[in-house]
Amino acid sequence: MAARQLAALGLDVVVLEAHESVGGRTRSAQVAGVTVDLGGTFVGPTQDRVIALAAALGCRTHPTWVQGKSVVRWHGSRRRYSGTIPRVPVTTLLNTERVRLLFDRAANRLGADGMGRSEQDEISLGTWLTRVRAGQGATALLAAVARTTWGCEPDEVSLLHALRYVKGCGGINRMLDTEGGAQQDHFAAGAQEMSLRMAAELNVYTACPVRSVRHTAGEDVVLETPHGDLVARAVVVAVPPAMRNRIVFDPPLPSGYQALSQRWPQGALTKAYAVYEKPFWRDDNLSGQTLSDDGPVFITLDASPEDASRGALLGFIGGDYARRFDALPQAERRLQVLQCFAELFGPAALQPLGYIDQRWASEPWIGGGPTAHPGPGALTGYGRWMAEPVGRIHWAGTETADVWSGFMDGAVRSGERAATEVAAHLAVRTTDDEMAANA
Amino acid sequence: MAARQLAALGLDVVVLEAHESVGGRTRSAQVAGVTVDLGGTFVGPTQDRVIALAAALGCRTHPTWVQGKSVVRWHGSRRRYSGTIPRVPVTTLLNTERVRLLFDRAANRLGADGMGRSEQDEISLGTWLTRVRAGQGATALLAAVARTTWGCEPDEVSLLHALRYVKGCGGINRMLDTEGGAQQDHFAAGAQEMSLRMAAELNVYTACPVRSVRHTAGEDVVLETPHGDLVARAVVVAVPPAMRNRIVFDPPLPSGYQALSQRWPQGALTKAYAVYEKPFWRDDNLSGQTLSDDGPVFITLDASPEDASRGALLGFIGGDYARRFDALPQAERRLQVLQCFAELFGPAALQPLGYIDQRWASEPWIGGGPTAHPGPGALTGYGRWMAEPVGRIHWAGTETADVWSGFMDGAVRSGERAATEVAAHLAVRTTDDEMAANA
Repeated sequence: MAARQLAALGLDVVVLEAHESVGGRTRSAQVAGVTVDLGGTFVGPTQDRVIALAAALGCRTHPTWVQGKSVVRWHGSRRRYSGTIPRVPVTTLLNTERVRLLFDRAANRLGADGMGRSEQDEISLGTWLTRVRAGQGATALLAAVARTTWGCEPDEVSLLHALRYVKGCGGINRMLDTEGGAQQDHFAAGAQEMSLRMAAELNVYTACPVRSVRHTAGEDVVLETPHGDLVARAVVVAVPPAMRNRIVFDPPLPSGYQALSQRWPQGALTKAYAVYEKPFWRDDNLSGQTLSDDGPVFITLDASPEDASRGALLGFIGGDYARRFDALPQAERRLQVLQCFAELFGPAALQPLGYIDQRWASEPWIGGGPTAHPGPGALTGYGRWMAEPVGRIHWAGTETADVWSGFMDGAVRSGERAATEVAAHLAVRTTDDEMAANA
Repeated sequence: MAARQLAALGLDVVVLEAHESVGGRTRSAQVAGVTVDLGGTFVGPTQDRVIALAAALGCRTHPTWVQGKSVVRWHGSRRRYSGTIPRVPVTTLLNTERVRLLFDRAANRLGADGMGRSEQDEISLGTWLTRVRAGQGATALLAAVARTTWGCEPDEVSLLHALRYVKGCGGINRMLDTEGGAQQDHFAAGAQEMSLRMAAELNVYTACPVRSVRHTAGEDVVLETPHGDLVARAVVVAVPPAMRNRIVFDPPLPSGYQALSQRWPQGALTKAYAVYEKPFWRDDNLSGQTLSDDGPVFITLDASPEDASRGALLGFIGGDYARRFDALPQAERRLQVLQCFAELFGPAALQPLGYIDQRWASEPWIGGGPTAHPGPGALTGYGRWMAEPVGRIHWAGTETADVWSGFMDGAVRSGERAATEVAAHLAVRTTDDEMAANA
């Protein structure tokens, strides 16, 4: 996004991508003729910047399927329900709603910069759940939220980070809902299409990891790549915070930046898809949406193509479940996912036309997904260095966004912000140069 | 240490050191003619392996100065005391002793592998202090321990990691004490001398960071360095866990290893020395040892040469204090440290012959000091990958040690363990090759 905007200003821009393809944490694949999104998938209301980009690029979305009853698997038993409230014990529901209100209220009370009282950065979301006496049921539900949202257990993420993150989404319901929320729509041709279309209009080198970024004595920055050095006037580094550490900066980054990179781990979230002849669960009046208090698959969604020419089930495996699941051989992973799908939707789920999974924690240039989960102390200790430029180095990536950080929308916003910074930076320099030339 | 042992077995060993000098987190400097240790400094009883190494290399130690009264600065007032028990309010002392006993008891109850109940990995040391009602005074004392031990605040380190770490030292007192503890002796010519003497007998390249480690289709591993590729039969990677991420592994490390590297941050601990004509505080019957509940310098020690030909004060700045201190210009840092020394030892402290500080968090190849502080979830989630070899890659470094991890002794032990592993690994291969040749 930063490259697109700077190129539009007439600047000479080169994109150096470490992976073999562009898209970062969006990656689309074909399974039995169906396009599935292995990473970022959905968009929803208030995600205005990614929606505007998709429109500009002609990337079409359609509503996520929500008709029919949903399924909750809870304490080993399976129940159907309508609407968005799962059929779990009523005390669990009431307690969960109480905890949600407490959480949203605390999130709304954060200051304009999203940095609240530092005591909120001293404890984890898990410790907070204990303090507010969330109880076993509500804690299990909130753990499922942590696993999908950050790819971690509630104990691994700072309460302040969780509050700030959810505030940037507009609240828990906006973040979690399908209709009216962040899962409302998905891309007909896959979310990666946006990056592919942008790349087609840019000068992009793939499989080209930048190994070092060196400030010269002059006004330049030199990027070392496997194909040689590249000299630039400014650079936008758009890798996850933990991956900044993989680049050698010369001179070294100030200690706060180095420390941040060590304290902003990427989560463990794996996505699995099974594709069928038909979305057979719809015949049974099921929406394909499920929530489970056990794994490995603990959330599912219907990801079938709009015309229902095939059926596609998407399952999420996150946090502790992902750690165990990711280490298994492919055949075993496939078996476990299909068995989960069969328990939820019947034995027909055992016979898919195709299966695929994507373990984001295995990606050497990304390091995990869907986003990062700084633990206690990291945000108030080092958060200020997240997007602050260092000389001619600017920072982008969804983790640097204040709004919808962790989502495709945050990624687009961060690119726009970085482009604005670079444009200002270079314009000032140009003026200085002209003044110097005139002097 | 690994290289020394493998070379002694007659193997052809090359040491590739990223920094300009060997020694890692030991580094000695001269200030006004006095040798000071900017990193690892002290040794004490039960640190048998580093003591054996020092003896073998002829590196002499002498006792740390402890005579005279110590000083505690507490709630803004300064008091002298004798022995090891600071003069803080008696309720604080009793409560601190209660918390210490609780902590040591929990540490002793850990299993043989040091992995205890996973619930202990779900909370931070800080949350545990709240749960056991440590109170303000004991919490402040334990915070000082966390800052010197791990370079972090109590909220940033997993309770289980803290317990396991202290257990590996033989208890809190063994870890913290001067006489009979880990600060008992220090090196006459500096701790770095051990590495320098070992390096003199080895084939060492400094300023030679390894950029990638590639397993070949055959039996080799190829190390990419700024000076070209090096082919080896096995490699020992002895960098802090967070720095493993800076090396490109091909094929990529399994996801558990990548995740560990993102979740094992190096601490923020800075050491400052001022050197004087004489250890003038001794004339005042002061030991030079102080403890403070405020910073930036919150612990001091007398680090004068054995013959007292000069006086040297060592001050520690850690955790939140280090974050602020490290960002200041040198003149301001010097002023703040000398003012702290003057408050504790009188105005003579303002006129040193020389001053030096070392900010470990600014070191691009080390990333912080004195050691790492994994937060909640990291140890039970990923600790098993800390020292487990991957193909021909073996791991060393003090963080991989079970006993005295984080200390020089743990570093030596880890090198010995890695050397044993590599020797076994290569011997097995040799036997296999011979069998294949004979078949």
